[in-house]
Amino acid sequence: MYSLPDLEPLKDFNAIAVLTSGGDSPGMNPAVRGVVRAALNQNIRVYGVQKGYSGLVAGELRVMTSASVRNIVQRGGTILKSDRCPEFKDPAVRRQAIDVLQREGIDALVVIGGDGSLTGAHCLAEESDIAAIGLPGTIDNDIFGTEDTIGFDTAVNTALDAIDKIRDTASSHERHFLVEVMGRNSGFLATHVGIAAGAEMVVVPEYEVQIEQLGQQLSDSRRSGKGSSGIIVVAEGRDPGLTYRLAQQLTQHGEEPRVCILGHIQRGGRPSGHDRVLASSLGAMAISYLLAGYSDIMVGVANGAIVDVPLDSVIRYRKGLDPKLFELALLLHK
Amino acid sequence: MYSLPDLEPLKDFNAIAVLTSGGDSPGMNPAVRGVVRAALNQNIRVYGVQKGYSGLVAGELRVMTSASVRNIVQRGGTILKSDRCPEFKDPAVRRQAIDVLQREGIDALVVIGGDGSLTGAHCLAEESDIAAIGLPGTIDNDIFGTEDTIGFDTAVNTALDAIDKIRDTASSHERHFLVEVMGRNSGFLATHVGIAAGAEMVVVPEYEVQIEQLGQQLSDSRRSGKGSSGIIVVAEGRDPGLTYRLAQQLTQHGEEPRVCILGHIQRGGRPSGHDRVLASSLGAMAISYLLAGYSDIMVGVANGAIVDVPLDSVIRYRKGLDPKLFELALLLHK
Amino acid sequence: MYSLPDLEPLKDFNAIAVLTSGGDSPGMNPAVRGVVRAALNQNIRVYGVQKGYSGLVAGELRVMTSASVRNIVQRGGTILKSDRCPEFKDPAVRRQAIDVLQREGIDALVVIGGDGSLTGAHCLAEESDIAAIGLPGTIDNDIFGTEDTIGFDTAVNTALDAIDKIRDTASSHERHFLVEVMGRNSGFLATHVGIAAGAEMVVVPEYEVQIEQLGQQLSDSRRSGKGSSGIIVVAEGRDPGLTYRLAQQLTQHGEEPRVCILGHIQRGGRPSGHDRVLASSLGAMAISYLLAGYSDIMVGVANGAIVDVPLDSVIRYRKGLDPKLFELALLLHK
Amino acid sequence: MYSLPDLEPLKDFNAIAVLTSGGDSPGMNPAVRGVVRAALNQNIRVYGVQKGYSGLVAGELRVMTSASVRNIVQRGGTILKSDRCPEFKDPAVRRQAIDVLQREGIDALVVIGGDGSLTGAHCLAEESDIAAIGLPGTIDNDIFGTEDTIGFDTAVNTALDAIDKIRDTASSHERHFLVEVMGRNSGFLATHVGIAAGAEMVVVPEYEVQIEQLGQQLSDSRRSGKGSSGIIVVAEGRDPGLTYRLAQQLTQHGEEPRVCILGHIQRGGRPSGHDRVLASSLGAMAISYLLAGYSDIMVGVANGAIVDVPLDSVIRYRKGLDPKLFELALLLHK
Repeated sequence: MYSLPDLEPLKDFNAIAVLTSGGDSPGMNPAVRGVVRAALNQNIRVYGVQKGYSGLVAGELRVMTSASVRNIVQRGGTILKSDRCPEFKDPAVRRQAIDVLQREGIDALVVIGGDGSLTGAHCLAEESDIAAIGLPGTIDNDIFGTEDTIGFDTAVNTALDAIDKIRDTASSHERHFLVEVMGRNSGFLATHVGIAAGAEMVVVPEYEVQIEQLGQQLSDSRRSGKGSSGIIVVAEGRDPGLTYRLAQQLTQHGEEPRVCILGHIQRGGRPSGHDRVLASSLGAMAISYLLAGYSDIMVGVANGAIVDVPLDSVIRYRKGLDPKLFELALLLHK
Repeated sequence: MYSLPDLEPLKDFNAIAVLTSGGDSPGMNPAVRGVVRAALNQNIRVYGVQKGYSGLVAGELRVMTSASVRNIVQRGGTILKSDRCPEFKDPAVRRQAIDVLQREGIDALVVIGGDGSLTGAHCLAEESDIAAIGLPGTIDNDIFGTEDTIGFDTAVNTALDAIDKIRDTASSHERHFLVEVMGRNSGFLATHVGIAAGAEMVVVPEYEVQIEQLGQQLSDSRRSGKGSSGIIVVAEGRDPGLTYRLAQQLTQHGEEPRVCILGHIQRGGRPSGHDRVLASSLGAMAISYLLAGYSDIMVGVANGAIVDVPLDSVIRYRKGLDPKLFELALLLHK
Repeated sequence: MYSLPDLEPLKDFNAIAVLTSGGDSPGMNPAVRGVVRAALNQNIRVYGVQKGYSGLVAGELRVMTSASVRNIVQRGGTILKSDRCPEFKDPAVRRQAIDVLQREGIDALVVIGGDGSLTGAHCLAEESDIAAIGLPGTIDNDIFGTEDTIGFDTAVNTALDAIDKIRDTASSHERHFLVEVMGRNSGFLATHVGIAAGAEMVVVPEYEVQIEQLGQQLSDSRRSGKGSSGIIVVAEGRDPGLTYRLAQQLTQHGEEPRVCILGHIQRGGRPSGHDRVLASSLGAMAISYLLAGYSDIMVGVANGAIVDVPLDSVIRYRKGLDPKLFELALLLHK
Repeated sequence: MYSLPDLEPLKDFNAIAVLTSGGDSPGMNPAVRGVVRAALNQNIRVYGVQKGYSGLVAGELRVMTSASVRNIVQRGGTILKSDRCPEFKDPAVRRQAIDVLQREGIDALVVIGGDGSLTGAHCLAEESDIAAIGLPGTIDNDIFGTEDTIGFDTAVNTALDAIDKIRDTASSHERHFLVEVMGRNSGFLATHVGIAAGAEMVVVPEYEVQIEQLGQQLSDSRRSGKGSSGIIVVAEGRDPGLTYRLAQQLTQHGEEPRVCILGHIQRGGRPSGHDRVLASSLGAMAISYLLAGYSDIMVGVANGAIVDVPLDSVIRYRKGLDPKLFELALLLHK
């Protein structure tokens, strides 16, 4: 696992709040537990905000004790519940949130979520003197500044469980399957799943798919006897229905691929060991960073270590898919 | 498990063949293993037919030894491969199959598959003096004359694994999910999955769905605070796209349900313990029934015991959904 | 699944209580849910007793609502908690329990558990006018009068998950493994696991193990090249350490088997689909039997149907292992 | 996942061999696949050695094609089989191995295994002009010079699956469980499992366990009502029976903990997504390092990147447990 930084405690806090926001991801619960237990160990009061930013604005806070997070490390979803909150883009709405926090004497906030959620945390840090720390929680692993996100590893394993099952039937019927995994803008999940599933091909938003070539490749492998069955992993991409369109196009090349859309099962499930350790570490480290005086940062992973990244950069830049990893996926299927 | 009949061996066989046909189902491998090992124990030669009836017509047979079925009890799919073979409805094609079997000195055939596959076995038994035994292999559990089929229990568990994951995200976001399971003509799988998943509602082809009522029920449970999230299990039914249409209609009732189509993962995966024991028993019993002089039967389950059912009846009648079981599903969600 | 009886409601109840007792088994939660929801549907008040009979004697009861059993259908263990309570053999202690029930106006009790727990229910029914229904909840499936028990199917699957893993390493190292499953007096679990795992041999308390013969068989299969690796499933039996002693004895026959004791993982885990449907049905049927005027019975499974069995018989007789099933296990490994 | 190095191909190879050695670990198969496919892509002939060094000495080699490694990415164990080979410490035996390799025109060897296996590779590199590359394959993650090893992530998840089940029963019965995981010399696995399982305590060989203190802590948490049940994760350590002795000592402190030894299930099972991607990358990179002229190195992971480490250092130094990680485990249970 990732090595942990040494941080000197410099600041005091009266009370902190923690919330989960956006699409839920497996590991949010151990992250919440890490935040709560680490804060309580420093005698800081902790509030859990219900339903993300909407709940924050509405003042839905409850005091968290050590027992509040007992027996949750292995549960999918988030006990704090989550929500998307587009209204939080409105500074007036954020002002309400700040009022709620200040009224309760809360001087720091930990936000667990994706891009949009971290933007909210950044705004709060800029627009008030409340310290704000973001933790990357998304199955897409598409957040700039961190190699890993809470929920990604579990989602890879969930997709693999499904694909290992599909492979049984693909192989019994000598058929190709197009399996769609999540990833609107990013092929990170698809590429990992593709390598791990031994997929014949991976289709990602970052590179244009060559239907001619893919059709040719499937026909070749069928003719060569190498593989009359196989899995093609497809990131869902920006246009709904991509996978079905691919299947139609391949049909015109004489293939009869079946389609399987994994959908929301990828967001749920007991978090994997990796995600539990990652989430627990990031949660506990969020408190260490706060005590060391940091704010307006995300706590993420770089070069195998837990690090801080300014939320400003996290929001501004986009994370690219490692081309060498994508090449590896293509190389190994041969 | 089911009790096994006492059967007296009366007949001799020179060689038997075994094939898997139609959509594959988890447990076909232990069924094949049961057939092969039980036959070898009686010093009967065994051939494995590749790719169902198509392979039979094409003469794709290989001799099976005890080692051929080693280490397959836990594998999904079928090592014999499977295929749908609509041409087998043509008596001339069946004639070719009979020729192949007779040429190899094979005097009995065991067929593992669904409705269509068992029809093929019945025709062969009628049109030749080759003894034919069918074993019910389908995840739908919709075969007349048997309470249980090879693969059904595994498919229920696979659907539940997925739904337990979806429930995490449903509950974190306080949302309803429509989850589509297999079942074109039969709501058996959907009803079992619905009971086991604690579903809010089950939609099956046997009963018309009352959209008004369902919409009302979801709104009520949301308002009552009893359940702002939940799972509705939908059998795919005869018209593709049913689940999406249901979702649209519910949207008009003010709900925003998400849709999840489980698809082909339900056919694959390591067979469950129940399916392995069922398949092993049925496979071994197929040989006992052959030796006792039976032919043109399916070996199935009735009243908790392994029994024979004339293939003629299996094909002619339809199995109905137990209304009491469906009522149980509705009762328990309240 | 099992067919459900038609029962005419004849009696009224004021309030019922439900408890889980003895070793916990997966499926106790859906059973509790079935009892609670079915009773509430009949407008009967329901109390949940904490910690089995000990909690009953101590008066640890809480009112159960529909929401109390929400989202528990998929959870292992029992939300009511369980306990062994040897003191309940003392009539004076049972008198206290009866007093507690009568004080709260409770006129029926549903007990979910094994042999000992059902004995307690029988005594209460005899010693008071409180109606008592037992449900068979144990992973051992060793209760007289029922073919199936809540938790057995899950325990088989849990043992198989473990053995499928062990087989990987057994096969990579060409080694034999002795795998111990639960079963002090009964080889039912071991026999099912053995068939489903494709085990080389099954050792059960009902039949004496022939070490000479087993050692010979392992050496033979090693020499023949048929199987230099394999799994021997051993029921723990009455004398602790049996499996280690077997391993030692086999070592004297030139084998070097490894030992794996599955232990308590067999009691836990999310209940399987089969166990959830069984438990839900039995739970709901317990209420139907009560309303139909039954008492002092267990609701179990016979001939593929849900039936009532006098608790008196359940307690007095012992369930034997089906010899044909055991023979099947031996037959198929060859 | 880990970033991949850029390597310039400088050398040619005629043929390479790959072997798996020592205790098997999940992910060896995708590693073998990575080596084979990457070599074939460079038109290098590949031999698979059966049964580790013993098979190498005995000349048990077979030519590997792309199809030889088809459909193995998801399988536990190793298709090449593995063995411990103490005789390989004898230079004369190694001389035989070198002869075998040279006779077949093999000029490079990739070894996948633990400490002892990598020592063998180092000796071969020193004693011949055959290039040798080691890949870290062990569930213990105790190899110097690499943060991660093939199989570790899967073993963590396997242990967690078991512990999540045990927690159900622990919590239903309000009991403590001592769960023993692998780790003779290293508490790495135990510490990760402990954090991820939310364990009450972790016992590792690196730190002495304070029985008094542990007993006190359990009693305190029982009295405080915080936790009357819980999991204590114990690394097996050097002296067999440690966990049973701990249990006895705790019994003297008034606790009645149960013991669960996870044993060999930790070595088996389908490799996790993480281990499949790691193994595939390391396997493919082994060929890149060979082509770039490297020999006598292990390809491992440092600072989140795939790197080379001299085998000499790998063997000479010991990897220590990160004390900050261990502290995290202790911190979070409170």
